[in-house]
Amino acid sequence: MIQYPNGVKKPSQTKTKQNLKKLSVNTYKNRGMDFEKEINLTNQYYLETKKAVITKRPTPINVVKVDYQRGAKITHAYFEKQSTTDYDGIYRGKYLDFEAKSTQSNTALAIANITIHQRHHLQHVIEQGGIAFLLISFTKRDEVYALKANDFLEFIAKETRQSLPYDWIKNKGKKIKIEFQPRIDYLAAIDDWFF
Amino acid sequence: MIQYPNGVKKPSQTKTKQNLKKLSVNTYKNRGMDFEKEINLTNQYYLETKKAVITKRPTPINVVKVDYQRGAKITHAYFEKQSTTDYDGIYRGKYLDFEAKSTQSNTALAIANITIHQRHHLQHVIEQGGIAFLLISFTKRDEVYALKANDFLEFIAKETRQSLPYDWIKNKGKKIKIEFQPRIDYLAAIDDWFF
Repeated sequence: MIQYPNGVKKPSQTKTKQNLKKLSVNTYKNRGMDFEKEINLTNQYYLETKKAVITKRPTPINVVKVDYQRGAKITHAYFEKQSTTDYDGIYRGKYLDFEAKSTQSNTALAIANITIHQRHHLQHVIEQGGIAFLLISFTKRDEVYALKANDFLEFIAKETRQSLPYDWIKNKGKKIKIEFQPRIDYLAAIDDWFF
Repeated sequence: MIQYPNGVKKPSQTKTKQNLKKLSVNTYKNRGMDFEKEINLTNQYYLETKKAVITKRPTPINVVKVDYQRGAKITHAYFEKQSTTDYDGIYRGKYLDFEAKSTQSNTALAIANITIHQRHHLQHVIEQGGIAFLLISFTKRDEVYALKANDFLEFIAKETRQSLPYDWIKNKGKKIKIEFQPRIDYLAAIDDWFF
């Protein structure tokens, strides 16, 4: 390492400032990418405050080849599509199930984001008396909405469009408060709707 | 193909017999290995008959490296331990959650089979008013038992042993009928206990 006069570690100091700048930019810029992380933090908060137990289903992966001689290292695998939804759990004794989607669009969410398998799964959950919904983040607007799965399924049954318009979501859904803790308090919408 | 007299297809016939034999041997021998598969078939049956919606959580995999130039091929990954349980879903409007374990032992199930994380998860589900249990297969005996998570957690809190004795499971738990369809009708035990 280069020695600076007076023991000042110039490169390190600069690096710290750069890092801070980078961090704040990331926080703003990647808000959409962090939607999953923010939901996970929210669920962690719900768990710690004993409000609910809601977990993320791991991404299903189709493992083709495993090298057991190198500590069960997976050397060949593929991502599979989730045939159910991303999240489920228990809240106030009831089964709760939802899919989370974020979009960069300001005007709509493409319906293709929610697979046929996932639509069937939401339908099955409703039939069994569970709480089923979508959590939709309009990243650029910094707005998150909860939308009842029932409203979503009715829309796609009736309408021929390929996306859910922002205005319709805003009208049918419930806007979720973004706060420090919990980050995305979506259970507030569930309280209003189902209890 | 060799032509046999009178149009008899000898090899094919033999093959069929061999296959049948192989099939029946497999059915017996791999019963323990197929426990997961049998539960999945049972859940499929529950879904189709609209009795319940219960799904297996995918095995969590920590992806280290993905080759996007070869169709998102995962080239480096590791299995992670499931921090929750294997199965959850909705039955008669209630949240249901269980861990399935099979053992080759005739006398006991090692408690270490259920991780600390999984024990906490079961405890949290109970606190939220959910239905939590274990499904235990004694492979060599060809017997499956449901055991309330509450009884399991009480046992490990009180006892110092490293395993759940077969006799205790038989006494505390409920024996599940093994049938053609559904294969492992564990919801019958849930009906007796919780409804």
